[in-house]
Amino acid sequence: MKILGIDPGFARLGVAVVEEKILLYSDCLETSSKADHAERLRELGEGVRKIVLKWQPEVLAIEKLFFNQNTTNALKVAEARGVVLYEAARAGLSVFEYSPQEVKLAVTGYGKADKSSINVMVGKLVALPSKEMLDDELDAIALGITHLASRRTI
Amino acid sequence: MKILGIDPGFARLGVAVVEEKILLYSDCLETSSKADHAERLRELGEGVRKIVLKWQPEVLAIEKLFFNQNTTNALKVAEARGVVLYEAARAGLSVFEYSPQEVKLAVTGYGKADKSSINVMVGKLVALPSKEMLDDELDAIALGITHLASRRTI
Repeated sequence: MKILGIDPGFARLGVAVVEEKILLYSDCLETSSKADHAERLRELGEGVRKIVLKWQPEVLAIEKLFFNQNTTNALKVAEARGVVLYEAARAGLSVFEYSPQEVKLAVTGYGKADKSSINVMVGKLVALPSKEMLDDELDAIALGITHLASRRTI
Repeated sequence: MKILGIDPGFARLGVAVVEEKILLYSDCLETSSKADHAERLRELGEGVRKIVLKWQPEVLAIEKLFFNQNTTNALKVAEARGVVLYEAARAGLSVFEYSPQEVKLAVTGYGKADKSSINVMVGKLVALPSKEMLDDELDAIALGITHLASRRTI
């Protein structure tokens, strides 16, 4: 089963495609702060659409959103997340949402693990390419792993 | 110039197409709480897309989002708003955002006008059909009127 993991974001959106414990693809879609607001959403949505068409995942594993202190940013991230969910539904993917805590628990076994522990464990659970990765990309891979782990315990 | 006015929402989304002072079309797109989250966004986005294809507006006038007390709902509305902006950008529309205060000021001349004053003024500014209208639909018309009024003062 191919899983599309997405760490939603407006300026940077992490994307990964995992199949069992193999990482097929990962990237970080970035939008320029110089571009129009709606144009940035178009870039993100069309980017996700291309990835879905190319890799044909059956499932989307996406992070649940919670409010942080930067509420304006939270609304922008929610807009981007809406576009991702929209493209997933258009392509017929099943959607599963995971909280940051669920991701931490699935990847490290500890629900309060810090960022660096997660990154270390992601590298142990799947073979990562030797390119440099942004956190958003690693988070997307972690979401894919979380979905795999959640299914195994059912 | 044809303007698409949209009052963003997740359960109910108001849509209107106005051209100068003529209301060409208005409706309220509703999604069922029984449907999946992503499926509801698909319904809204594809509904907006159909309206854009049919009426060919050049401009989208959409309400700016602010936080209210119901933060979970605000995130859902932001997701729906993201989908609308995405479809607008895909169709090449110019996007203009207005705050509730700007709408009140444009429609009634008073930035703190109440809902019923706005509804009365909307009915005086454009000829409304004799069907019953939900607030979301009237708000969408008010957004279209706001864009017309804003352009006139430039």
